[in-house]
Amino acid sequence: MSADERLARVALGRLTEPGDPRVSALVEEIGAVRLHEVLAAGGDLAGLLPDVTSRMAAVQPERDLETAARLGIRFLIPSDEEWPRQVDDLEGAEAVHERGGAPLGLWVRGPLRLDSLDRSVAVVGSRSATTYGADTAAEISAVCARAGFTVVSGAAFGIDQAAHRGALGGGGATVAVLACGVDRVYPAAHRALLDHLGATCAVVSELPPGCSPTRLRFLSRNRVIAALTRGTVVVEAAVRSGALNTANWAGRLNRQLLGVPGPVTSAPSQGVHQLIRSGAATLVTSGAEVLEMVGESGAFLVEEPRGATRSRDRLSTRQQQVLDAVPLRHAAPADSIARTAGVALLEVRTALGGLSRLGLVLQVPEGWRLAERAAT
Amino acid sequence: MSADERLARVALGRLTEPGDPRVSALVEEIGAVRLHEVLAAGGDLAGLLPDVTSRMAAVQPERDLETAARLGIRFLIPSDEEWPRQVDDLEGAEAVHERGGAPLGLWVRGPLRLDSLDRSVAVVGSRSATTYGADTAAEISAVCARAGFTVVSGAAFGIDQAAHRGALGGGGATVAVLACGVDRVYPAAHRALLDHLGATCAVVSELPPGCSPTRLRFLSRNRVIAALTRGTVVVEAAVRSGALNTANWAGRLNRQLLGVPGPVTSAPSQGVHQLIRSGAATLVTSGAEVLEMVGESGAFLVEEPRGATRSRDRLSTRQQQVLDAVPLRHAAPADSIARTAGVALLEVRTALGGLSRLGLVLQVPEGWRLAERAAT
Repeated sequence: MSADERLARVALGRLTEPGDPRVSALVEEIGAVRLHEVLAAGGDLAGLLPDVTSRMAAVQPERDLETAARLGIRFLIPSDEEWPRQVDDLEGAEAVHERGGAPLGLWVRGPLRLDSLDRSVAVVGSRSATTYGADTAAEISAVCARAGFTVVSGAAFGIDQAAHRGALGGGGATVAVLACGVDRVYPAAHRALLDHLGATCAVVSELPPGCSPTRLRFLSRNRVIAALTRGTVVVEAAVRSGALNTANWAGRLNRQLLGVPGPVTSAPSQGVHQLIRSGAATLVTSGAEVLEMVGESGAFLVEEPRGATRSRDRLSTRQQQVLDAVPLRHAAPADSIARTAGVALLEVRTALGGLSRLGLVLQVPEGWRLAERAAT
Repeated sequence: MSADERLARVALGRLTEPGDPRVSALVEEIGAVRLHEVLAAGGDLAGLLPDVTSRMAAVQPERDLETAARLGIRFLIPSDEEWPRQVDDLEGAEAVHERGGAPLGLWVRGPLRLDSLDRSVAVVGSRSATTYGADTAAEISAVCARAGFTVVSGAAFGIDQAAHRGALGGGGATVAVLACGVDRVYPAAHRALLDHLGATCAVVSELPPGCSPTRLRFLSRNRVIAALTRGTVVVEAAVRSGALNTANWAGRLNRQLLGVPGPVTSAPSQGVHQLIRSGAATLVTSGAEVLEMVGESGAFLVEEPRGATRSRDRLSTRQQQVLDAVPLRHAAPADSIARTAGVALLEVRTALGGLSRLGLVLQVPEGWRLAERAAT
């Protein structure tokens, strides 16, 4: 029956577009095998699939699986041990979006097991990235990959590419999810990258081998990236961009949504700023901050940057009070400092002595003044 | 009695440091006049003011007011019509901070009436600002000033200076709040700026004329900036910076706290990113967004940037569906597009005809492909 299930899902994948909520609802209701049988018998199903009879004739799931196997491509279905369970969160998501249906299966090229993606993070963003954005995406991806989180992205130009390369540079794993068959190369310029991922990590798609990318397929692909990962980091995304679509999916699926800010003058950062501003995304500035959000609770606590410790941190309260009362320019006599500090003169003299030994104040003919090092 | 009240507050201002919560609590309890009498009579008040008797002898409030008046400086107290009422929000703030007391009064140099500051916004930030930060501060300040919001800042190097100059460039008003007497110039390099503000807008301080700046006075000054304004915009602030102190005051006083992001690689943006990340500040990217937050509810609604409208926005649902199914590369025959779109062939041909007339698809020997302009 698992073989029937797999063949039925291959066939349904050839007949329908990814994420079609009518298909996933029917699969949930009557099962993939039964749905396939109904369609094969010419069942009309209220116009679900135009020309279903003629198209059914062209579908050869056994041959699809054989060809795929020869190319080193496997087809995972939900009953497989390797199936990434988190993708099941898409079940029921069809209620909230027209392309929200659960995938029928996932075509995979490469040795990385998809059930290892329970520790993964998506790093996505603009195709027309700036150097700043690409560098930041690569750095964040390297840190996440080094910490054992697989970096998932879409193999596009710009941020996606930087994310994959950053993860590889960090010595970690990275997975590309495509909007076409995993045997196809899109964009063509990324042949070397995709071949490398197929040989060492994994290239994944809902679409059967041979399928071309379309805009609709990019949009449904984005929901898979969001569903596979614990969180999505958006690095540069113009106001209209596929990365924001992925971001929306991360939100719908209750994944962490994280945004990297940039200059307000940079168009590719505008979409990210909107996400942060609206409260949809949390601002992150480093891989460490990403890990803190997507890691097991408490496993990756970031120490807030606190600035260099200064000698004044080690002072007594009284010494600080007196130091704060020493004028920033010119010198002042001790009694004037005592008045400003609201501290008795005798205590002020003791404190000034200690501050002088620490090199924070200097005694000059006119009284006391701040030393260079205490003036900032 | 108002004259007595004013003289008492001048004298208390000479005897104490700004924001001392013990002083403001006593003023609230017994009044400034009575507190002054108690101190003049040598009342010890549990060590509130060391050496009070000798210091009291040196205080000459009448002469202070005369000298100030000669210099064009006035001293406002809470019973004055010109008193900026919002500063009274500091009453009771001494409970939450050691320097949180209400000001005894405000020394003002310049024609701008402080009761006009009910429409004002603080723009503050790092002294060691980047060009990006300074430009952004100036631009935001210009937009706010043009909209009739007075820009309040601290006349320091970097962001403060850019804020004042931006507001002036925008043809609006701007006020400097100093940590020294309003007759003093700090930093010295800003003499021309402060003279200009004193002649055309206003320079304000809690401290009596002649007083020097100290670190303690900078910190108490920051609470006045926050209290005077409807919101504080932080543009670049390193992890330890006075601007973050102003930000904290804005938060404590329930003012809007707004932060301008920058590159994550820029140290002067780190403090702002922390404020946004922690939820303390709202991310803003423009003067329009600042006005939306500090303006009267609904007066300055920002239209979210939506990207350029594209021809595809004007298509029917069916046309969009078909256009989305046209492959991004190569051409496809109409029946293949029909399968991808899940639309009947006849409808696909109609839709393709319409799309072709709009210049979005091209018919070629192998079928249909996207036109250049539809491919992005």
